[in-house]
Parts: sequence; C-alpha cells; structure tokens
Amino acid sequence: MNYNDLFNIIEDKERVKLGSEIGDKYLSDALNRDKGKAEALVFAVNTEEVSKVMKLAYENNIPVTPRGAGTGLVGATVPHKSGIILDLSLMNNILEMDENTFTVTVEPGLHLVQLQKFVEDRGFFYPPDPGEKNASIGGNISTNAGGMRAVKYGVTRNYVMGLEVVLADGSVLNLGGKVIKNSSGLDMKDLIIGSEGTLGIITKAILKIIPKPQRTVSALISFNSLKEGIDTVIKIIKKNANPTAIEFMEKDVIENAERFLELKFPCSTGNAYILLTFDGDEEFEIENNCKKVEEAALKNNALEFILLREKEDIERTWRIRGALVTAVEAVSEQEPIDIVVPIDRSADFIAYTKEAEREFGIKISSFGHAGDGNVHLCVIRNGMEEKLWNEKSKLLLEALYKKGHQLKGLPSGEHGIGLHKRPYFMEITDKINIEYMRRIKRVFDEKGILNPGKSYS
Amino acid sequence: MNYNDLFNIIEDKERVKLGSEIGDKYLSDALNRDKGKAEALVFAVNTEEVSKVMKLAYENNIPVTPRGAGTGLVGATVPHKSGIILDLSLMNNILEMDENTFTVTVEPGLHLVQLQKFVEDRGFFYPPDPGEKNASIGGNISTNAGGMRAVKYGVTRNYVMGLEVVLADGSVLNLGGKVIKNSSGLDMKDLIIGSEGTLGIITKAILKIIPKPQRTVSALISFNSLKEGIDTVIKIIKKNANPTAIEFMEKDVIENAERFLELKFPCSTGNAYILLTFDGDEEFEIENNCKKVEEAALKNNALEFILLREKEDIERTWRIRGALVTAVEAVSEQEPIDIVVPIDRSADFIAYTKEAEREFGIKISSFGHAGDGNVHLCVIRNGMEEKLWNEKSKLLLEALYKKGHQLKGLPSGEHGIGLHKRPYFMEITDKINIEYMRRIKRVFDEKGILNPGKSYS
Repeated sequence: MNYNDLFNIIEDKERVKLGSEIGDKYLSDALNRDKGKAEALVFAVNTEEVSKVMKLAYENNIPVTPRGAGTGLVGATVPHKSGIILDLSLMNNILEMDENTFTVTVEPGLHLVQLQKFVEDRGFFYPPDPGEKNASIGGNISTNAGGMRAVKYGVTRNYVMGLEVVLADGSVLNLGGKVIKNSSGLDMKDLIIGSEGTLGIITKAILKIIPKPQRTVSALISFNSLKEGIDTVIKIIKKNANPTAIEFMEKDVIENAERFLELKFPCSTGNAYILLTFDGDEEFEIENNCKKVEEAALKNNALEFILLREKEDIERTWRIRGALVTAVEAVSEQEPIDIVVPIDRSADFIAYTKEAEREFGIKISSFGHAGDGNVHLCVIRNGMEEKLWNEKSKLLLEALYKKGHQLKGLPSGEHGIGLHKRPYFMEITDKINIEYMRRIKRVFDEKGILNPGKSYS
Repeated sequence: MNYNDLFNIIEDKERVKLGSEIGDKYLSDALNRDKGKAEALVFAVNTEEVSKVMKLAYENNIPVTPRGAGTGLVGATVPHKSGIILDLSLMNNILEMDENTFTVTVEPGLHLVQLQKFVEDRGFFYPPDPGEKNASIGGNISTNAGGMRAVKYGVTRNYVMGLEVVLADGSVLNLGGKVIKNSSGLDMKDLIIGSEGTLGIITKAILKIIPKPQRTVSALISFNSLKEGIDTVIKIIKKNANPTAIEFMEKDVIENAERFLELKFPCSTGNAYILLTFDGDEEFEIENNCKKVEEAALKNNALEFILLREKEDIERTWRIRGALVTAVEAVSEQEPIDIVVPIDRSADFIAYTKEAEREFGIKISSFGHAGDGNVHLCVIRNGMEEKLWNEKSKLLLEALYKKGHQLKGLPSGEHGIGLHKRPYFMEITDKINIEYMRRIKRVFDEKGILNPGKSYS
C-alpha cells in the first residue's frame, strides 16, 4: 500500500512517521531485546482515527502492532511483521469519574500511576498494582496485569467492567458497561482482556473503583528457608487474615537490591522473607489480622516477625522489593519469567530452580507473589559468552516451563506470552486449545493483521 | 439417525429413554411454560459418555439440549428443536477437595446446596448464593449465576478456576486450572461461563473456596419510600462497610409473603426495606460495619434500623425474603425478570415500573439486589384472560426491557437469556455484538447442534 494514505486520515501530519523517521524505541519493548521494523508509526488521538487506520490496514492486508507505554516484557509490541505501529499513548484522558456507580472511564494510553493518583485524590482506590506504574491501562488490560495486591483484590480482569474495542476491519464493538452483573449473551469482554492486541484495539475502558482504605501496615517475617516461608503462606490464608499482598524473596536478592539502592532492609535474620501488607479503615481490624499472621508464622518456624508501622519503614522496604529486578539488571542481562503454579506448589517449583541452577550453571534469582503462586524468576547471564548464553538459557527456560507445566502451572501469570514466551507456550499447551484460540482469532481478524505471530497466533 | 445407536454408547440401558418414555419434566424448565419435544433422553455418567453422545449427534446433525437440575427460569433447557436431551444430573460427584489450593473439583450435576454443605462442614465457604439452592453447579456456571452475596463476594464467574468442556464434535477441552493468575493465551474459560450450553457441555469444574466466615448478622432498615432506601445503598457502599448482601423489597411484597408463610416480618414501619447481612470472623469488625451503616441510614431518612442478632430472627427474615417469588406464584402466574442497571439507576427503573403498572394495568412486584443494580420483577397475571395477558404482557415486557436499555442496563443479571428473553435481548442488543457472538458459536459448533436457538444463537 501507499503509506502516504495515512496522511488523509490523520489531520496533524506530525502524528504520522514513515520509514526512517520511526524512533528506535517504537520497534521494541521495555527489554529492548528484539527489534522489529515498520513502514509507518501512527499516533492516534481518538477512536475514529483508530478505526480509520484499521480500515485502511484491513483493505491493504497490512499488519498492525498496537502499543501503549511500551513497558511490556515479552515482545508483544515488537512489530516483527513490519506494517503499521499504532501508538495509543496520546489517548490518555480520564473521560469520566462516576462516584455513584463506582466507575472511572479512561482512554487506553493513560498510565496506571496517573489513574491511581487521580482516584486516590478523590477518596477512591484502583486496586490492581503491577510493579511497573508507568504501564498504560490499555497494556494492563491486554496482559491482564496482576501485581502485588492480587491476593486480596484480584487482577486487572476483575476491574474491567466495560470496553470499547476497534476490530481488525475498523468496526467498533462495545462490551459490558456500568453494570455489576451480566448474564446476557456471550462474554466477549473477558476474551479481549489478556488477548495482547491480537483480537482488537482497546480504545476505552470502564473500570471499577472502590472506596480507598484509610490505613495500611506491612509486616516482614524471616525464615531459615524459603520452603518454610511459603508453607506458612497457606496457613496464613487459612486464618482468614485478609492480607492485601504476600510477597516472598530470598536473602541474596535482597542484599543485591540493598547494594544497588544503598538502603538497609529492616531484617537481617534468616535466609528468606515473607513481606505482607494489610489495609482497611479500622486500626483494630488491621491489628487483629496482623496478630493472626504473627501467631501462624511463629508456629511455623518463623525467626522474626517485624511489624512495619512507620511510613518511612514501609516505603523503604517496598522500595527494596520494587527494585529487585532493576538491581539484577544493573549487574547483568537477565531473562524475566513469571510462571504461575498452584499456590501449594510454589516451594516445589523454587526448589527445582535451585537444581536447575546447578545443572545449567546459570544463576536464577527468585522472588514473587507467594499469595497467588506467581513466581518471578530472573535468569541471569552474568557475562556468559553470547553463543553459549543463547544456547544454554534456551535449554534452561525450556526446562523451567516444562517443570511449571508438570506442576499444573501456566507459563505466564501476568506478563503475557508475546513473542519471547511463544515457543515455550506452544510446546506445553494442548494442541486443541491453540487450535480453538486460532479459530477465535479468525472470527475477529480473518486476515490476521492484528499483532500477528504473538502469543497463540 | 437411528436413536437406538445410543444403546451402543450407554451401557446401562435404563439411562436411555426414547420417544414417549421421556418424562414431561425433561421437556421444560422450572416455570414449565414452554414445552419442547425430543427423540431421546440420555443420562450420562462420565465425560467419555458425554463425548460419545456428542460425537454421534455431530455425525448425524442432531440438536442436543443439555440440562442439569432443571431449575432454570428462561427456557434454556427446553428442547424446542427436538433431538437429544443430555441430562447431567447423575454426574454429581465431588471429585476432590484440595485445602492447600483452596479449590474443590466437582461434576456439573452436583447441587449448589450439596456443595455449600460439603465445604462448610470442612471449615470452607463457597460464596455464590443464588436463591435456588437446588440448582446444579453446571447450570450456575452456564448462567453465571449471581445471588445475594455478590455485593461482597462477586458472582459464579469469580469462583470458576478451571473447566473441562465437551465440544460439539465430542472433543474435550481443558481450560484454566488451580492457578490463581493467568495471562497465557486467550481466556476461553470465561467465554464458556454464562454461555447457556451453546458452546459446549461442562463436565467438570474446579471451583475456588475460601475460609468460612465465623459470624454473620443481618440488619433491616425501613424507609417511607423505596427511592430513599436505594439512594442510601450508594452511601452505604461509600462507607466501606463491606456488607455481604444488600437487598431491597417493598411492603406489599413482604405482606404477601407473610400471609403465604404465616410468619411475621420483624419490621412494620415504612413502605420499603433494605435488608443487609454482614459476615466475618470478629465481632468488633461486624459491629463496627453495622454502626457505619446505621449512621448512614439514619442520616438518609431511615425510619428504623433493626439489628438482627438472633439466629431465629435472621432465619425468619431471610425465609420471608427467599419466599417472595413463591408467594407471588401461589396467587398467580407471573413472569420473572432480572434486568440489571447501573447501581444508581435502580430507583429510576423501579419508579418506571410503577408508571408501567398504571399504563398497562398489570401488577408488578419488585424486589432484588440493591447492592448491584440487579432488579427482580414479578409481572403478575392476576387471572387476566389468556389472549389479553399474552398481548399486554408482551408489550409491557418490551417496555421494561427498553427502559432498562435506556438506563444503560442489560436484560439479564443472573438468569440468562434462554428462549423466553431472546426476543427482547435481540431487540436491544447491538447487531454487531450478536454477529460476533454467532461467529464465535460457529467456531465451537459449526453445525449449530448445541442448544440451538437459545440466547444470541
């Protein structure tokens, strides 16, 4: 096609870049590992423009790679089949805040941090809280992002009440709305959530918000071994203590982040830690939940239970938790993995990573969401020669995904599949599931122009 | 086809009924309004049998109508295209209770009441609680059943972690699992939930359970008008008082149920009531939440706030609430409606039903889930002559669904669409949504043999 036709659609000529005008960052994602190529980059500002771009692409069989803030970790925004990059970062408005239906309606380019601040300033709360606060909401929805607070509040899926979606041929689909319950026909909204831009382009989202909890405290528990820590988590959940987040991490990962940030972690006993938060409106409620957890922990070989009440202590501790990956990356290239296993198999899976470290001679840092079995691993290159690293890390990753599968887990809890995890995902997923996903893809995108070759497609 | 071929599949000949051997109840649903016809009725006992029956039906282009306990209200189990009725009520086993992953794995024919009792006896809790406790879990999943406790705990969809589904051609699809998070390919599990047997036959479900709350209390608040009551609900939710259920009902409906049950409702002031429950482990937590609600209510013109602490009072009150529809039906035929609107439009919708009552000369009782905008109406025949009733009630229903649509609502919050609501659903749903639902149907069931003509199909 003649890409100059895009200038007939987009009024402001500055919002169309062709060929070599396309900045490098638009050809990759946050990890900047794979680099695609593209003929055109379009910054759309409204649904109509998105629709017109899609219509043009559809008529000309041109691949379209949608992108938001570009913070993805799996290569889903890499335009590896060339064509058009459709950037939605300028569609970042908060369209409506409706206090009576507890909803906020936003455009997809809005950053999570902006949404959180906006609603919290008004006494409300948007619970999903993935680590990357500068991710766009469209990206959060496209990957069904999870994050720390999923234990108590659930994941992004649980907060998406309605979607406006532009389909491959440019038509516009409205799904859900401000209603809480729905038993009216097929649930296409949940099909779009987590589909990584392969079924349609999200141009508007109605999100659920809740009243903001007035208080929050954190607690840190140390153990001799990670296994003891993770076993304790199941006992904590059985106690109905309602924690907001339950994270696990090991001493060496913490020490690395301490060095990186030049900050001191508030606990030095033991080799593994469980970090929890509790939120609510009433002090006695939170205190009571903390007490339940302390009792359960001390009964299960905890070495120390530290209640973090001061804002400064809480912030410092979570800053260290938040910087674990960055601290690893400051030292070496790493491959991030977010395999999810049934909650009681986390310890088995982590134990296997120790075996795999020895077998493959590659260091693996592990930490993650102990409250939901979503294990984060950094597979660390540590200066290994490129060819060897490529070979060995691939074999190691295959072994890790296979083990996750054996434990009845899934390859991704919150990052998505994209390009990087696709081979592993394909290997362990039932053929019939892939076949039906592809058939559904053809329903929405018969020409296969929407983010082709990503995930199952 | 030769229906005697079914005897080659089903070992126990007693589990296949042909032609006139088929009992009347298998040709309809709980309302017994529409009556279909069928060539064969099969009681399957395992996934393999379901698969073989589907394969036979697929090869011979025979419609299959799946059914569980037959408690549906919208005609989804009426075999109106003849063919085979596939009854799953004998597949009613609890296959596994896994305390470490907080899951229970069940067959679809298990009744809700049996599941609830089983897990509660073991200190756990299955929160979805639709009014009909003898519904089957398969039916609950197929309609995404909601119920009273949705305000705090969500609906059936939020508790389905994994599904085994037999497809139209007899192949078996496994979706989800015991993992809490999932960002691994398209979410086909949520597509099956609420699909009313049009995409596949659910043969196994992994359900999420939670620790059982130790205490529960109820509170009853009276108002001069329903509008004041419903307006108060939004203020209660803003207070973060975390009620489990918030129901509304009017005096005349209560009085009818009092007469029917010969029981006394614990409040006689006012014309409208809000009935709430609170649950949790700690008395002070529940007391504090009740206090918040009492303050909010009295500030909003509540006449009386009655805390129900005694088990006998709580049971009696909820027995009356639970019998509202039965009490109406004891007096007259009625048409049940469960339109859902944004929570702040419930009062507007109810106000419209009063207008509609006058305009159409047909009595409408209203009650329902004030905490989530799911309004239940009984449109009451009251001895009206058949032809007139058929004509007028159809026009009234059209007006009600249209009004719900104008208020940005949806035709069903929890009952589903089935056969009875199909014309209204088709009328108010965007053509493009129906088109995509039908295309998805063809992915799973190209021959259109699975519960044909129900809902969108």
